[in-house]
Amino acid sequence: MQDRAEATRRLILRSAAEQFDRKGYAATGIAEITAQAGCTSGALYFHFAGKDQLAAAVIEEHFAYWQPLVARAEQLRAPALEQLVALSFAVMRAFRDDVVVRAGGRLWNERRAIDARLPVPFVGWIATTSRILGRAKAEGTLQPHIDPERAAELLVCSLFGVHIVSDTLDGRTLVEEHLTGLWLLVLPGLRADRDDPDGGHRDLVERCRFHLPQEQ
Amino acid sequence: MQDRAEATRRLILRSAAEQFDRKGYAATGIAEITAQAGCTSGALYFHFAGKDQLAAAVIEEHFAYWQPLVARAEQLRAPALEQLVALSFAVMRAFRDDVVVRAGGRLWNERRAIDARLPVPFVGWIATTSRILGRAKAEGTLQPHIDPERAAELLVCSLFGVHIVSDTLDGRTLVEEHLTGLWLLVLPGLRADRDDPDGGHRDLVERCRFHLPQEQ
Repeated sequence: MQDRAEATRRLILRSAAEQFDRKGYAATGIAEITAQAGCTSGALYFHFAGKDQLAAAVIEEHFAYWQPLVARAEQLRAPALEQLVALSFAVMRAFRDDVVVRAGGRLWNERRAIDARLPVPFVGWIATTSRILGRAKAEGTLQPHIDPERAAELLVCSLFGVHIVSDTLDGRTLVEEHLTGLWLLVLPGLRADRDDPDGGHRDLVERCRFHLPQEQ
Repeated sequence: MQDRAEATRRLILRSAAEQFDRKGYAATGIAEITAQAGCTSGALYFHFAGKDQLAAAVIEEHFAYWQPLVARAEQLRAPALEQLVALSFAVMRAFRDDVVVRAGGRLWNERRAIDARLPVPFVGWIATTSRILGRAKAEGTLQPHIDPERAAELLVCSLFGVHIVSDTLDGRTLVEEHLTGLWLLVLPGLRADRDDPDGGHRDLVERCRFHLPQEQ
């Protein structure tokens, strides 16, 4: 695709994300998206067959956001459990700060209204979390009775809950505080070194929290 | 209200719940609700001003379901932490088995489309959980550094996450297994007696799981 066509496509996608994020799928019209993008409806339909495909493209863009972030987390020079904590903070900040990530999340929530094939949610996150916990286990930092795959499922559930509840109750302004609290609640059940009732876990969370700043 | 009018109202509400649960707010029509209830649209509009009010009534019915269940949990002859575990299983089973609870949950998820005043979610559950954890703390079964209100927030997040992820991935068929796993993950961080790495927590969960059977 030519550079200019690609730039237009990205502009339309971003404008769509802003509208979908603000108003949801049903209330967003094609006309508002083209108005915000400053393009014609012809330009929009050149790239996207319709609103459903545009929504699906935003959701795919949302899913595509995570792969490089996960790669960065797994390349950190830190124990696996710390990589996981760092990753969780970066994900929550992306939901707070990135309009495409946020719009993708909202659209996924409204997915029953969207007539397009969409990625299956959660399974990718469960697989990623399970892989990182598997390395933590190999490093000896997990309690011996922990099954990485089961623990991954439940961590993903809990993280998803923090993400939704914080969105609902405080517009995500407190999401990092909620996330810190969640880790303090579950780390004693996960980590091998349980001597220190709280302090050691809090140190770990504070240490990892900003390991993965958002890329510019 | 007369008994017959009340019976009709309940029949309409239940029919609406079944349609909303299956098809969501946008795709459900008044005609399908009256057809399923076997009543006229006149009867429906006698009780409900329109689809928005009907959806709001289902959501209110959903919220009203919990109060007697919470009361039963708090009257159990069991330590507070066990009451909380028992309550969590009863709530998850209600979402799995009760169509009004399920429809209320789905409608709440689609709440932005519904033009009516709706109850604020989560805060009631956080208050309930916080109160029960406060009693657990007074009983000495919580770790001393646990703040009941903060822990309640995060438990509600995690339970909500289990509820949504299980609905999405396995149609709630495995929800009790997920919930057991969640408690095994968080109990070591909550409970005062941490000597037993896993067994004691699993015993507690198994013991409480069926303390609150659904009322007929």
